[in-house]
Amino acid sequence: MKLVENALGRLVPSEMDGRKLTPYRGAFADPLAKGVRAAPPIPHSYPIHEGGEEKVLKNLKEAIRKTGLRDGMTISFHHHLRNGDYVINMVVDAIAAMGIKDITLASTALFPCHKPIIEHIKSGVIRNIQSSMNGPVGKFVSHGNLPTCAILRTHGGRVRAIEDGDLHIDVAFIAAPCADDYGNANGVYGQSVCGPLAYGAIDAQYADKVVVVTDNLIRYPCLPISIPSTHVDYVVVVDEIGDSELIVSGTTRITRSPARLFIAEMAAKFIKESPYYKDGFGFQTGAGGISLAVTKHLGDYMREDGIQAAYINGGITQFAVDLFHEGIVEKLFDGQVFDTKAIDSFRDDLWHCETPMTMYANIHSKGCLVNRQDIGFLGATEVDVDFNVNVNTHSDGLLLHGIGGHTDVAAGAQLCMIVIPAYRKRIPVIRDAVTTVTTPGETIDVIVTELGIAINPRRKDLIEHFKSSKLPIREIRDMKKQVDGIVGGQPASPELGDRIIALIEYRDGTIIDKVMQVIQ
Amino acid sequence: MKLVENALGRLVPSEMDGRKLTPYRGAFADPLAKGVRAAPPIPHSYPIHEGGEEKVLKNLKEAIRKTGLRDGMTISFHHHLRNGDYVINMVVDAIAAMGIKDITLASTALFPCHKPIIEHIKSGVIRNIQSSMNGPVGKFVSHGNLPTCAILRTHGGRVRAIEDGDLHIDVAFIAAPCADDYGNANGVYGQSVCGPLAYGAIDAQYADKVVVVTDNLIRYPCLPISIPSTHVDYVVVVDEIGDSELIVSGTTRITRSPARLFIAEMAAKFIKESPYYKDGFGFQTGAGGISLAVTKHLGDYMREDGIQAAYINGGITQFAVDLFHEGIVEKLFDGQVFDTKAIDSFRDDLWHCETPMTMYANIHSKGCLVNRQDIGFLGATEVDVDFNVNVNTHSDGLLLHGIGGHTDVAAGAQLCMIVIPAYRKRIPVIRDAVTTVTTPGETIDVIVTELGIAINPRRKDLIEHFKSSKLPIREIRDMKKQVDGIVGGQPASPELGDRIIALIEYRDGTIIDKVMQVIQ
Repeated sequence: MKLVENALGRLVPSEMDGRKLTPYRGAFADPLAKGVRAAPPIPHSYPIHEGGEEKVLKNLKEAIRKTGLRDGMTISFHHHLRNGDYVINMVVDAIAAMGIKDITLASTALFPCHKPIIEHIKSGVIRNIQSSMNGPVGKFVSHGNLPTCAILRTHGGRVRAIEDGDLHIDVAFIAAPCADDYGNANGVYGQSVCGPLAYGAIDAQYADKVVVVTDNLIRYPCLPISIPSTHVDYVVVVDEIGDSELIVSGTTRITRSPARLFIAEMAAKFIKESPYYKDGFGFQTGAGGISLAVTKHLGDYMREDGIQAAYINGGITQFAVDLFHEGIVEKLFDGQVFDTKAIDSFRDDLWHCETPMTMYANIHSKGCLVNRQDIGFLGATEVDVDFNVNVNTHSDGLLLHGIGGHTDVAAGAQLCMIVIPAYRKRIPVIRDAVTTVTTPGETIDVIVTELGIAINPRRKDLIEHFKSSKLPIREIRDMKKQVDGIVGGQPASPELGDRIIALIEYRDGTIIDKVMQVIQ
Repeated sequence: MKLVENALGRLVPSEMDGRKLTPYRGAFADPLAKGVRAAPPIPHSYPIHEGGEEKVLKNLKEAIRKTGLRDGMTISFHHHLRNGDYVINMVVDAIAAMGIKDITLASTALFPCHKPIIEHIKSGVIRNIQSSMNGPVGKFVSHGNLPTCAILRTHGGRVRAIEDGDLHIDVAFIAAPCADDYGNANGVYGQSVCGPLAYGAIDAQYADKVVVVTDNLIRYPCLPISIPSTHVDYVVVVDEIGDSELIVSGTTRITRSPARLFIAEMAAKFIKESPYYKDGFGFQTGAGGISLAVTKHLGDYMREDGIQAAYINGGITQFAVDLFHEGIVEKLFDGQVFDTKAIDSFRDDLWHCETPMTMYANIHSKGCLVNRQDIGFLGATEVDVDFNVNVNTHSDGLLLHGIGGHTDVAAGAQLCMIVIPAYRKRIPVIRDAVTTVTTPGETIDVIVTELGIAINPRRKDLIEHFKSSKLPIREIRDMKKQVDGIVGGQPASPELGDRIIALIEYRDGTIIDKVMQVIQ
């Protein structure tokens, strides 16, 4: 295999599993923005009284048979039900029972609940994974157990890959908390509500065949429509598509750790002093304990200062909804909910809007909303002295997390802040070089830790702006040295095999890094 | 020019202006459902702080220049502002002033307010029209004044043509009552509200370049989003995009004509006695005086009988909104509003939903909503004894009306009723053969006139169902004979030239009829 050096100096393959690859050339080089979009087959449909087909089928196996799914094809799923999803396992079990093999699993993400997929990899049902992998499946893949190389993409990168034709989906299965017999679906009514179906929109639009899987078939028409009947071939009713209570991401409580509260406070102060804190600004927040604390502080400042944010873009939680209902934030962009409490507002409020992923983050569009964000605050497993960020692997080399919108937000936001502890359980988070580059340092502006705040030297304007600030602004290399002192030096390198087990694709389709096999 | 006979016995050309044509083969033959969809160029975009382009331009001419619009290209517009639209004239004036010629005008519809287009045809700026033409432009084209042959499509047929690649739009101009500087747009806030932007959705998705034209630029983000920023290249602010008061279609008052009230009453009674009148049924209604009266009667029956309709699909008026707010109708599908009073509900009510045209009526989709309608009641300029319907021309041969969703609803609805007077101003509406076939008789079930109700002989089931009804059910040929007696026979044929001035395209892309030049 030929390895080439990309713009970050990482060695990446020029070809993998028969697909030619382009090395990463810089955050805004975008060398693959050419040609035309994927062109799905032209479908047609008649009314049932004129010979049209009934869409509701009796079970998943019938749907799988009708779609023509066979060995070597690609299937997809959305992850709005997160760790409460039952549909992926259900469908892959059915595929396995039907003797179909060598499937590429291109869900938007896999969670610990999808551990049963491991057995299907072992038995040859699943041959490739192009998906975020959170937890056990990632660990299993890390040890070299997938016969092919996995591909990890950002939220924006995945829609780009589908729209540009890099990722062709043969059959998309859309878990739907509410659907009608013609396939119109949403996530806001029923026993298994999950809010938007924004991850599934692109799959429904481009997949050759689309199957809606629901536990709540209602009288036609199902409104509002997140997935339209025009994209749906079949509908299957099952007992339960998932457990809404398990969609909670991270924590729904603000951190209680004094160090982390301190990080959040400094991050919020930094934002308040920045040129981006002004009426009408927009920001993205997540669901981690630190993020929630930053949001809370920011809300307090805005209330005091009489400043209104034009929008929060997210992963929406009850925290964001509260600020919205209070009027401190005017509008909400919602790509997914991180707690069930946000769903009522998503369903009922005019200015709490669903954002399909291409609208959220596709660089190959005429303008996605991450491009417009003033501020994003994000997490990391590691950062390095060049401001590169790793969110995929740990220092032990194991691939345990997906990318989400991390890289997209970093590229788009005017002020991208990484808000993290400097070390965790005596393992340094600030490194000489991250184990895996997920997000290039070029797009990271500030790193906030309990030891201080580092501004990327590229942001001379910000350094100038903050030169008389009382905030503890420091060189990242100094902070790194201090961390090493505290934890007793950088951790040992993991023992790696010589197989590339996954590629990290930048949002523009180039290869930013590879992930190597970890010897067990 | 070679003419071939289509499935209705009409002679249609096999080629026109260099495009190969397929003759109509039957309402559900759909011979062109093959191949893949059009593939627009892959765009890309950066944040402005990373070198991305500002979308807001200083005027229309700058936008036209930036889009690269040049001689021979195709431009498009939606018609949500109907007879109150200012944008088409404004843009074509600018194009003319810039010396650009031979443009194809592919708006969704043209109204009397677009009469100035005639001068641009004369001067060579506009060379072809692929649009509904209501009024003066149609009359001008009828007299052979367009240098090429116009094409008329149904709402569903137009989106099909765009999605299938038959109609390529170079630059779409989207009149937007509300927009932000990134191009997100809706029709529900501002001085020129028009409700949905459902006609423009497909243009924005497939056009090479898209310009939003607004008179109400608001702070980012403009929510809700009918047209997303991901599809928009440029935004231009003008003083006024139109006059909302002039979007009113037909009448907003129930007819006062006793004959027409009688027609409406019989139509409503027929529906009530039909097998389709039951809890959960869905229907489409329009804005004509008879349609409103049918809707009113139907509402009264439903109130009495405790029956709830699942939805009205339309052209939504205050009449439909009232039934919806009363709970007699559960949900509203809204492709356009026919009066401004419907807009508040469209903006605020969760179950009053926008229906982009592909969702409304595209036969080349996996299931559009006209396929699901139980009942549609529609108008006509003429019908004939084979139940064919003309909505485009009058008996004098002049092309004065667009198709709208007529043909789509007829093909989709289980019970398609034409609700019309048997004659108008001593001109018979029931003919031996319609002047132009817009909608094939195969898809028309019932014709209701003041002289009685004719059921299509193909609908043996309906004839059987109504055999003991007290309604005046008659043979269409008898009704035609009676009309001829009343008005003194069929009208003289118009004097036609030998040029085909327009083609009527069936919703599947085949040619159902041609329209000949009328000698002045």
